[in-house]
Amino acid sequence: MDIKEFVAQSIGQWRSQRSAHHLAFGHFEAIRSEIAIEVVADHDPAVIELCKAHDIDPGSAVAPFRMRWEGQSDWDEEEEVKGTCILVPVPDPGQANRGKLLRDRGYAETMAAAGDYYLTADGTFVLTTAYDRAAAEEKIWFINPNVRCRVSLIKTSAGSGVVTASFSSEIRQEIRQEIRQAS
Amino acid sequence: MDIKEFVAQSIGQWRSQRSAHHLAFGHFEAIRSEIAIEVVADHDPAVIELCKAHDIDPGSAVAPFRMRWEGQSDWDEEEEVKGTCILVPVPDPGQANRGKLLRDRGYAETMAAAGDYYLTADGTFVLTTAYDRAAAEEKIWFINPNVRCRVSLIKTSAGSGVVTASFSSEIRQEIRQEIRQAS
Repeated sequence: MDIKEFVAQSIGQWRSQRSAHHLAFGHFEAIRSEIAIEVVADHDPAVIELCKAHDIDPGSAVAPFRMRWEGQSDWDEEEEVKGTCILVPVPDPGQANRGKLLRDRGYAETMAAAGDYYLTADGTFVLTTAYDRAAAEEKIWFINPNVRCRVSLIKTSAGSGVVTASFSSEIRQEIRQEIRQAS
Repeated sequence: MDIKEFVAQSIGQWRSQRSAHHLAFGHFEAIRSEIAIEVVADHDPAVIELCKAHDIDPGSAVAPFRMRWEGQSDWDEEEEVKGTCILVPVPDPGQANRGKLLRDRGYAETMAAAGDYYLTADGTFVLTTAYDRAAAEEKIWFINPNVRCRVSLIKTSAGSGVVTASFSSEIRQEIRQEIRQAS
């Protein structure tokens, strides 16, 4: 699987159950959200701007996409978890399965970020991103075309300590309906 | 990493936070448990018996171990989640990173089971086990020597539908104390 195929498989509407484990205190947080992953055109001004901000030739971007999410945590029910970002994969020259992922807003901090991704032989997308005060590591893989799993770790910037480990199970929305009807 | 190293890294006392996502209903279950993973001698009668039950030469077993767990779920607080099992890896002839894992009691059903494991190039242990009415797929990997993650999927026996997806973050017990003190 290359990044183009991985993005193509990800396009759609997903319903996500996410559990965050705050390791120091053994706290569980439950987040329900809806995620939309949409194709963005290569020539979209936001893609070109993001590439330029990272000194990258926009011509080397592959399969840019937009993520939108909206959800609710049981930790702070007042606060709605909501956001949108554009992500731009840039494969390393001559490499089908590794490169950089640019995004105009990161998960752990509210600033733009560039992470390093690779795809394993068994189709897992692995992304590591270094922030000023933290590092994030994310693994995403498909169980079948309509179910994907995502494990995200937030680490101290030195990278050795894990602060939060979270797990999402994501189901394509029309499919979830069928599962419920069948059970 | 071969199976012997993977088992050696796993030996110890772990404190686990597990979140189970019951996908049809979007239910979250939170389980806290303590897990002990202990070395079992190659010549232990339980190891020899388990090999014989699967028509396997006990001489081909490598690094057998015992798991004990004890915990509590927020779903049914009356019921204590408690168990013990012996696990016996049997590498395929001439293969360092794949083989069978015998166990005297499975997760999804209360019967003995044999699963197929492999270790990926980036050190993830992947185990698939077919039961009569279900199939289980488990991935375990170390973040550092003292933190490991485990994702377990229970699928329908045909293997396409995912019934439960669960995620455990497991911290070596003496280390957890240090994390708490530092934060």
